[in-house]
Amino acid sequence: MSKNINKEFGLTVKKNENFSEWYSQVIEKAGLADYISAKGFIIVRPYGYAIWELIKEYLDKKFKETGHVNGFLPCLIPEGLLNKEEKHFRGFNPEVFWVTSSGDTPLAERLALRPTSEALLYSIFPKWISSYRDLPLRINFWNTALRAEIKSTKPFIRNSEFLWQEGHTAHIDNEGAKEQVIKILSIYKQFIENVLLIPTISGFKSNKEKFVGADYTTTLEGMMPDGKALQLGTSHNLGRNFSQPFEIKFLNSNNKEEFVWQTSWGISWRLIGALIMVHGDDKGLILPPVVAPIQIIIIPIYKDQNQELVKKHANSLKNQLSDLGYRVFVDERDEFTAGWKYNEWEMKGVPIRINIGQRDIEKNTIEIVRRDNRQKKLIPLNTVSAEIKETFKMLESDLYKNALRFLQDMTHLVENINDFKLLLDKGRGGFLVTNWCGNEDCEERIKEDTGADIRVLPFDIHDLPIKIGNGAAFLTLRQCVYCRQESNQIAVFARAY
Amino acid sequence: MSKNINKEFGLTVKKNENFSEWYSQVIEKAGLADYISAKGFIIVRPYGYAIWELIKEYLDKKFKETGHVNGFLPCLIPEGLLNKEEKHFRGFNPEVFWVTSSGDTPLAERLALRPTSEALLYSIFPKWISSYRDLPLRINFWNTALRAEIKSTKPFIRNSEFLWQEGHTAHIDNEGAKEQVIKILSIYKQFIENVLLIPTISGFKSNKEKFVGADYTTTLEGMMPDGKALQLGTSHNLGRNFSQPFEIKFLNSNNKEEFVWQTSWGISWRLIGALIMVHGDDKGLILPPVVAPIQIIIIPIYKDQNQELVKKHANSLKNQLSDLGYRVFVDERDEFTAGWKYNEWEMKGVPIRINIGQRDIEKNTIEIVRRDNRQKKLIPLNTVSAEIKETFKMLESDLYKNALRFLQDMTHLVENINDFKLLLDKGRGGFLVTNWCGNEDCEERIKEDTGADIRVLPFDIHDLPIKIGNGAAFLTLRQCVYCRQESNQIAVFARAY
Repeated sequence: MSKNINKEFGLTVKKNENFSEWYSQVIEKAGLADYISAKGFIIVRPYGYAIWELIKEYLDKKFKETGHVNGFLPCLIPEGLLNKEEKHFRGFNPEVFWVTSSGDTPLAERLALRPTSEALLYSIFPKWISSYRDLPLRINFWNTALRAEIKSTKPFIRNSEFLWQEGHTAHIDNEGAKEQVIKILSIYKQFIENVLLIPTISGFKSNKEKFVGADYTTTLEGMMPDGKALQLGTSHNLGRNFSQPFEIKFLNSNNKEEFVWQTSWGISWRLIGALIMVHGDDKGLILPPVVAPIQIIIIPIYKDQNQELVKKHANSLKNQLSDLGYRVFVDERDEFTAGWKYNEWEMKGVPIRINIGQRDIEKNTIEIVRRDNRQKKLIPLNTVSAEIKETFKMLESDLYKNALRFLQDMTHLVENINDFKLLLDKGRGGFLVTNWCGNEDCEERIKEDTGADIRVLPFDIHDLPIKIGNGAAFLTLRQCVYCRQESNQIAVFARAY
Repeated sequence: MSKNINKEFGLTVKKNENFSEWYSQVIEKAGLADYISAKGFIIVRPYGYAIWELIKEYLDKKFKETGHVNGFLPCLIPEGLLNKEEKHFRGFNPEVFWVTSSGDTPLAERLALRPTSEALLYSIFPKWISSYRDLPLRINFWNTALRAEIKSTKPFIRNSEFLWQEGHTAHIDNEGAKEQVIKILSIYKQFIENVLLIPTISGFKSNKEKFVGADYTTTLEGMMPDGKALQLGTSHNLGRNFSQPFEIKFLNSNNKEEFVWQTSWGISWRLIGALIMVHGDDKGLILPPVVAPIQIIIIPIYKDQNQELVKKHANSLKNQLSDLGYRVFVDERDEFTAGWKYNEWEMKGVPIRINIGQRDIEKNTIEIVRRDNRQKKLIPLNTVSAEIKETFKMLESDLYKNALRFLQDMTHLVENINDFKLLLDKGRGGFLVTNWCGNEDCEERIKEDTGADIRVLPFDIHDLPIKIGNGAAFLTLRQCVYCRQESNQIAVFARAY
């Protein structure tokens, strides 16, 4: 474990002074990931991967409960298949890795490394689907996607290969597909907000920003501390855009052939990046309890003469808490001081620390320390179960509240393009809620002028995290922020990752 | 579900008449996998993938209990890294897929699609390891390996991309590495024999057949019904063959620098192929209970007038068995007859079927049917829990016994090369246990002459599955089967997948 910890321990920058460097240091010093020599690729270390395993476990259960099954797809896709849905392919073309030979032998047809699996999977769907009885078909894949990143890369946020899940469904009608799109977005939203404790804005993507090949895309957008938006999950209605070129048909109950209606959807390890950014502080990571590989760290505080006794008590407490279902670890290493250990486990974001020493044993007490606000509480040992439960609840509630307050601070109602630019350039970025005419020209010009694009067309403007004013304020936004054309469309702009 | 079942249901060949065609049909008709257009690549369907999820769940738990953690590695490896351990690279060179461009841009350095991750992972180990306190380091990856198959391919047995796990460890001394190699082989053996119910022969690979870059390789070898051996799991002692070129050093407790000692080990979805081959019969798949996605299928037998009642009872039984921890499914589809359903679930290898009809409800009975020998038993409903438990035990015991009997029938003691050839050519193949001088020349010539290679140098000749004779029989094998040179080395030859 000694190498897991940089000899110069602790972060050398503050989160609000050099956010980008802060992020890199947290990833390295908490032992989450390492770069390899190929651009944009990372190795995820066990502590980082354990967070992904917990994300996966939680969502996999939700997917299975709602009738989804898992499968496996190869990571190589013959070029011919990708070309079948032209628009789709063009969207991915510049970032596709191409395999051109095996050993010294050139391949007859180039193989693309999966940027996403629609084309490959849908080429096999006609074999799986023949009747309405085969529908809905709901399948999911936990794998990676590969997209060559030309721009600057960032672990968990922008990588040339990333862990994700991609779900795919086929339905007898558009109603089924529409319901599915929203059902999945709700699962994502519930997970991201209630478990990862990151508030989001949900809605549609604009036509320009939607998934290539979709009728429409729904999205969840989060706000990062540097004022940039991060897309956290998307769910697409593909309509019959793939079923027609791939000839995915079924016999309906009247024995007539129809094309299926499809959806696809995904989240990725970006969620880990979002966690780090949103909750972390100047001492390192802060992990929400459900996805913390270690939820409770116990530090026995001892001298040579009482070492055995204190460690014994620490381990007995560990067993008691493990039996309650918590992930607990006792740090018994003799080569480090208690203070050194505090710093390390704070860096790793363990939500609760318990200190236990000779005096605690004599008095039947323990000290509970919250990672987020570092509040300490001395409690009687026999109340530990209730206290831990309550402490997790408070910590979760506070993490979410703080993140929501920040989101609200960073969401601005804007009426004209000057304010729009001012907020982006002089302010700290954030979400700019404004009126947009619906015209792609305006959307593109705003992007060129300001670097901000439409992140989301919100489902419900009354749910937007705007503190000042209320729903009535939107009544004043009747003209496009750019061309001043009249319109009722509210759009949320931001610069983004 | 209708398309899951071929309209021409049932296998059209017998297992012992056309084994290869039988295998293909089982994979298709049980809904396990499909080919895609690129040679050697398969899609694993949900039913097949669920078997892999159960294999993974079981082994992952064992690995974690024994101190291993999981991580993530990219699937692309820069060419320069692969070249660092020359022998290792040469071993994989002909089967490596090469990525040469991203979009229209050629890459500065070619990237290999992971044939195995030693080179990539070990390039990062120096960052993780500095002191003896960092050791042993035990890490595992559930991912895929890619090796272009030029020869004929077979789902789960020989594919250009396959699901596997690769474990890697680093130790302070060779003793640690040696123990690790055996510990992992024991975990594999316990799982393959006691859970998958496939008996194996365990031992070392010859130098010619060992993993490229290893000091030695240990292996578990199974026997398939067509007389060909199948390697089921391997565990390698890498010595310091990688730590020297990759400069993986640690400070020992005397503060002196040393190179670490390493191991690597893996199993793959070949285990699914082995399951199908060893246990399947002319009605389809037979799955061992622990890895059966559905362990108990309940078939309600009803007419229009009692449909509701019978289905209600079937579901109540289902809930009762689910609560006991079994994976149970009620087949309520009205469009199929009970007989049709029997065939389908037999094809899918569900180990226990329960039939429940009007008479059973009146008499408080149910009928239990074993998949393997199709034995039926009418039991009182209130004994179901004990009966199911007992039936699984008997079925597991019988599957293993049958597989062991077959292995014994197919393992022959051979004293001279004529008998050796005769058994291979006129007989049904199998394991040929004989004496070998230890010379690679003889090994190569035997391979050229007969197509058989050394599968394993057994750990313990007294454990070999030979019915006739006993340990004493080996005393007569004092001369190499090929060159007649005196030797004590017993080797097990076979033609193999």
